[in-house]
Amino acid sequence: MVGDHHGEEVRNKQVLARDYIDGNPKEEDMYLRTGTILLKVPEGSNAVLVKNLYLSCDPYMRGIKAKVQDRLFYSFAPHSPVVGYGVAKVLDSGHPDFKKGDLVWGVTKWEEYSLITMTESLFKIQHTDVPLSYYTGLLGMPGMTAYAGFYELCSPKKGEYVFISSAFGAVGQLVGQFAKLMGCYVVGSAGSQEKVDLLKNKFGFDEAFNYKEEHDLDAALKRCFPEGIDIYFENVGGKTLDAVLLNMRLHGRIAVAGMISQYNLDQPEGIRNLLTLVYKRVRIEGFTVYDYYHLFPKFLDLVLPYIREKKIVCVEDVAEGLESGPAALVGIFSGRNVGKQIVLVAPE
Amino acid sequence: MVGDHHGEEVRNKQVLARDYIDGNPKEEDMYLRTGTILLKVPEGSNAVLVKNLYLSCDPYMRGIKAKVQDRLFYSFAPHSPVVGYGVAKVLDSGHPDFKKGDLVWGVTKWEEYSLITMTESLFKIQHTDVPLSYYTGLLGMPGMTAYAGFYELCSPKKGEYVFISSAFGAVGQLVGQFAKLMGCYVVGSAGSQEKVDLLKNKFGFDEAFNYKEEHDLDAALKRCFPEGIDIYFENVGGKTLDAVLLNMRLHGRIAVAGMISQYNLDQPEGIRNLLTLVYKRVRIEGFTVYDYYHLFPKFLDLVLPYIREKKIVCVEDVAEGLESGPAALVGIFSGRNVGKQIVLVAPE
Repeated sequence: MVGDHHGEEVRNKQVLARDYIDGNPKEEDMYLRTGTILLKVPEGSNAVLVKNLYLSCDPYMRGIKAKVQDRLFYSFAPHSPVVGYGVAKVLDSGHPDFKKGDLVWGVTKWEEYSLITMTESLFKIQHTDVPLSYYTGLLGMPGMTAYAGFYELCSPKKGEYVFISSAFGAVGQLVGQFAKLMGCYVVGSAGSQEKVDLLKNKFGFDEAFNYKEEHDLDAALKRCFPEGIDIYFENVGGKTLDAVLLNMRLHGRIAVAGMISQYNLDQPEGIRNLLTLVYKRVRIEGFTVYDYYHLFPKFLDLVLPYIREKKIVCVEDVAEGLESGPAALVGIFSGRNVGKQIVLVAPE
Repeated sequence: MVGDHHGEEVRNKQVLARDYIDGNPKEEDMYLRTGTILLKVPEGSNAVLVKNLYLSCDPYMRGIKAKVQDRLFYSFAPHSPVVGYGVAKVLDSGHPDFKKGDLVWGVTKWEEYSLITMTESLFKIQHTDVPLSYYTGLLGMPGMTAYAGFYELCSPKKGEYVFISSAFGAVGQLVGQFAKLMGCYVVGSAGSQEKVDLLKNKFGFDEAFNYKEEHDLDAALKRCFPEGIDIYFENVGGKTLDAVLLNMRLHGRIAVAGMISQYNLDQPEGIRNLLTLVYKRVRIEGFTVYDYYHLFPKFLDLVLPYIREKKIVCVEDVAEGLESGPAALVGIFSGRNVGKQIVLVAPE
């Protein structure tokens, strides 16, 4: 029982970064250390002390060739624990919104126990009839990203044509399923035949293609969308965006969650087909999930029933133990994982 | 009195195109002819027969290297009168919404008298205490374009930083004045020192620059907007858009009315700074005024008082006589005109 350790100093295994990272992280950019931590919030602080249960490996956890101050928060800093999303249990709290025993999800650190001062990025878990790990995916940041981008930015209508790049990612999978539940025609692109097959057979996409096998993305899109695209959920940027622009329908909408193909280039690729914006009256909008967390209760109202009725499929790839974290995180950038990559730190 | 001619066949001077046009029109692409027209709407037709008073020279009246079917309407067709906006008086009408003697503005043809079948592009003029010619500019299509793009797409707030390219154009001038009236900080770019001076001294822009004199557009924007840009009213595209993207503020909005620098290129320039959309959560939206004409009454409620109180400046460049039309139209593409270019066909 965690209460046994309350106020005690205990060993705290951690995954730390060696330095800032430029580009995709490599295993040798991180190292393990065992420190100690007092299982008590300092007197007068409104921080929360948690035991981490699950940690989440997400594509945004990458160094980018952009000014650090442009980042909302940074996953890697020299000799500091990796920062990322997770699910945790509150052991002690100086914050009125959280009390001992609460389950929470939000921004935590890659270690066994964390003192969280940035409590505005912490959400109390109210529903535990669904797997806790879902709060790193479907019910957490990726889920809210899919929800905000698809419903709030794209105002989807039944029967519309929806394209999703990086469709097998944690966010893309959900956008596709939301779109199918809404009655849209849904096509996704992914980077392997295995993922393409799963998109069609497990996630119910109408069509999918392996972008690595397509010499002409414009032709691939025209094959999948003879009528054009109403909604594009953008995760990759570059050539894919340029090809999509050629295929947008009148009043099309593009929600830009990310441009994963562009972050680590010395110079981003030039996008040539923006005249489509004028000819087809298209809207492109970048967003981050942070601006939409106030919609979390509305989001749960939509998604929890879908989960309980098994109308949404959730595939997880669980790495066991904090030690396996670096390899798990590195793996998502080479597409090694099949499903949402999670690190199980401790059973509840 | 026009009634004298009712039902008569009269001579009808016309400006015709020799062929489709690819690129900016030249004078030799057009020619004058005098035909005849019966001043009566054919039996059973719901067309409207008008006497044209003013014709409007607008930057959209250009051939573009894009499929003709992508265009909403085309100004030039072989041996047909040039099609464009104008102000006219109804001589005969088969349409219930228009009657003899009504003044109208909308899409007409470059000739003395026109039989207009596309009556959905015709608006009745209700307010004649302002100059009729204003219905080709401030109170017509350019005015509605400025209104829709600025108010509807950009949701401006007092104190925001607004940049307008091609700011001396009929639309840009108005966006700048709307933005000033709203309490924004307004900067425009234009192509000559004379225009820059007028933007600042006559139209009340806070700052303006001659883009032809700036070697580094990013530096010019940083000089004018040390705090960055909230709203960009986009008329030109290309390098200007790329530089603007580097200077957008969080939650910035870009309304794309046109990309005049790109239409006639064999391949449009590549835009490299779209990652700003993600980092700064920026929205870019293309639009055409056709989707906003239902807001015309709301628009008049805003703008008519401004005109009557002389809070909006309107500069016109009037060419007299239909014969002067081709030269006037060609002139706007070289920036020869100072103010909204109009052709006076007949006094009311």
